[in-house]
Amino acid sequence: MSLLVTGSIGIDTIETPAGRREGVVGGSAIYFAYAASFFTPVRVVGVVGEDCPADLLDVFAGREVDLGGIERRKGSKTFRWSGSYLKDLNEALTVQVDLNVLAERAAKVPERFLDAGYIFLANTHPALQQATLAAFKTRRLAVADTMNLWINNEPAELGKLLKKIDGLVLNDAEARLLTQKKNLVAAARDVLKMGPKFVVVKKGEHGCLMVSADDVFVLPAFPAEAVIDPTGAGDSFAGGMMGYLATQGTFSPATLKRALAFGTIVASYTISDFSLAGLQRTTRDQIDQRWLEFKGAMNF
Amino acid sequence: MSLLVTGSIGIDTIETPAGRREGVVGGSAIYFAYAASFFTPVRVVGVVGEDCPADLLDVFAGREVDLGGIERRKGSKTFRWSGSYLKDLNEALTVQVDLNVLAERAAKVPERFLDAGYIFLANTHPALQQATLAAFKTRRLAVADTMNLWINNEPAELGKLLKKIDGLVLNDAEARLLTQKKNLVAAARDVLKMGPKFVVVKKGEHGCLMVSADDVFVLPAFPAEAVIDPTGAGDSFAGGMMGYLATQGTFSPATLKRALAFGTIVASYTISDFSLAGLQRTTRDQIDQRWLEFKGAMNF
Repeated sequence: MSLLVTGSIGIDTIETPAGRREGVVGGSAIYFAYAASFFTPVRVVGVVGEDCPADLLDVFAGREVDLGGIERRKGSKTFRWSGSYLKDLNEALTVQVDLNVLAERAAKVPERFLDAGYIFLANTHPALQQATLAAFKTRRLAVADTMNLWINNEPAELGKLLKKIDGLVLNDAEARLLTQKKNLVAAARDVLKMGPKFVVVKKGEHGCLMVSADDVFVLPAFPAEAVIDPTGAGDSFAGGMMGYLATQGTFSPATLKRALAFGTIVASYTISDFSLAGLQRTTRDQIDQRWLEFKGAMNF
Repeated sequence: MSLLVTGSIGIDTIETPAGRREGVVGGSAIYFAYAASFFTPVRVVGVVGEDCPADLLDVFAGREVDLGGIERRKGSKTFRWSGSYLKDLNEALTVQVDLNVLAERAAKVPERFLDAGYIFLANTHPALQQATLAAFKTRRLAVADTMNLWINNEPAELGKLLKKIDGLVLNDAEARLLTQKKNLVAAARDVLKMGPKFVVVKKGEHGCLMVSADDVFVLPAFPAEAVIDPTGAGDSFAGGMMGYLATQGTFSPATLKRALAFGTIVASYTISDFSLAGLQRTTRDQIDQRWLEFKGAMNF
C-alpha cells in the first residue's frame, strides 16, 4: 500500500562549520519524501506560497514522488527557516523562522490520495494532524512526529492525537518533556500508555531507541566521520523507516528493527552534505550495502 | 595469562535521586577488579591509608581477586570522594575530593605479580602509569585510562604513555579535549596516531565507540530502565572488557567487539544499585544471559 507524508516544505538558509547555503530546499515533508522514495513511491501533501521558486522541487525529478498534494497558495508565502550549527553540530540554533503559510490552514488531501495505507504526519499542530488523519479510512499504519511547542502548549490535542496513531517518532528532549521522565526507556514506556503501539526516540548522533509492549531496541547512529549538515536527519530517518515498512506489510519487532536500521543509514547520507545534496548523490544500492555493513558491525 | 589492575581504592559518599550512601567502597581499581573477576582472576595494585576500615575490601571475599598488591601505608590517609548525581544522573558532580594517599608515590608492584600478561592502568598521573608499566616485561596487552587533568596539565607525559600502551579507554569529553576534534570517530582516529592500536570511547548512557586501524565499532548501552548509581560504570565497563579479553588470548576485531559488549553488560549491573551492591548480586550466568539478549537485540 502506498505511503503518504504531510509536513512542511520550506526554503532554508543553513550555516554549519562546513559552510553556508542560502535558499535551499528543506522542510520535514521534503526530507521524508526523498528518503522514503528510495524504498517505495511517496505522495506528498503540503503547502507553499506564491513566492515559491518554480524549481524548488526539481530535486524530485525522476523519482517516484507524487507532488500532486502540494498546494501553491495565492497570497501566501512559503515557510522559511534559517538555522546555524556553528555552536553545536548536534543542535540547530534557529536564527530566524517565518512560518508564513504553515500558520494558516492545513493542506487539503487530494481525493486520489485517500487510499494511502501508510501515513506519516510530520510535525505540525496536533489538531491539524488529527484532521488530516481522519481523512484516511483504510490506513494500515499512522505514525506522527511532534515537538516541544505542542507538548507545552497543546497537551490536550496532542493527547487526543496519541490515542489515534500507531507510532510516535520524537527526539530525546521531546520524550523527556512529554513524560517528565529523564530515563528514555521509562519515558518511552509512559508514551506507550498514552496510546501509540510503538515509540521511536531519535537521539541524533547517539542513534535511536524503539519501545513497544514487547520490545526495547537500541541502535547507535552510523559512525559518520564527516557531518556537513545535520538538517533533516530526523525526517530522513523517519522517511527511511516508513519507506521500508511500507514495502513489508508487517510491523513485527524484527521488521521494525530493520526499518530503524534503514532509517539510520539513510540519515547518514543526509548529513554528508547540505540540504538534499547528500541524498541526491545516493543510490538504493549504496544504502543496501551500508545497511549490510552496519548489520555486520552490530553482529558481535 | 593473568590480569592486573592498578588504580584508586577509595571511600565514597554518593548522592543520587535514589538516595545517599556514606563511606562505601569505591575507586577505579575496585570497580574494575570486581567486574573483571566474573571472567578471570584479577590482581590488584593500589594503596590505602592507615585509616582504611578493616572490612572495606570484604566485598572481594570468595572471589578470585588477589589483594596482595594493596599497600596499607602508615601515616597516610585513604582516598575519599564525595559525588552527587542530583543534578544530572549522567555526570557526577564532585562535592569533595581528598586525594590523600593518591597524591603520594605509586604502589609497588609485588614481585609475584610481575608476570601479569594483561595490564590495566586506571587513571592516574601518566608518569606513574609509565613507571608501573615499565615493571612488566612479558605483558601481552596494556590498556590505560586517563582524564582531563592529565590531558590539560601533563600532555608531554601523556604523549609518552600513549606510545607505550596498546589501548586507551577514555570518555567522550576526554577524547574531544585530547584531540580538539568534536566528531568522536575523527577524534579516536587522531588518538590512534598518538600510539595506541585501539581506542575505546565511553559515552555513558549512549554506549561506546571503538576505533582501530581496520575497524570502527559502535555499541549502544544496554537499555537500563532504572539507574540507581552510575559511579564506577566506566571502570566496570573496562573491567568486563579486559576480563573477557584476558580469557581469549587474541585481540581480533571480533574479540574486541565481544569484549566491549561484555563490558557494556557488566556496567549495566553496576548502575543498578549503589557502590558494588549491583555487581555483588550478579552472577556470571546472568551476565552471559543478558549478553546473549543484547546480542540478539542487536541482530536485525
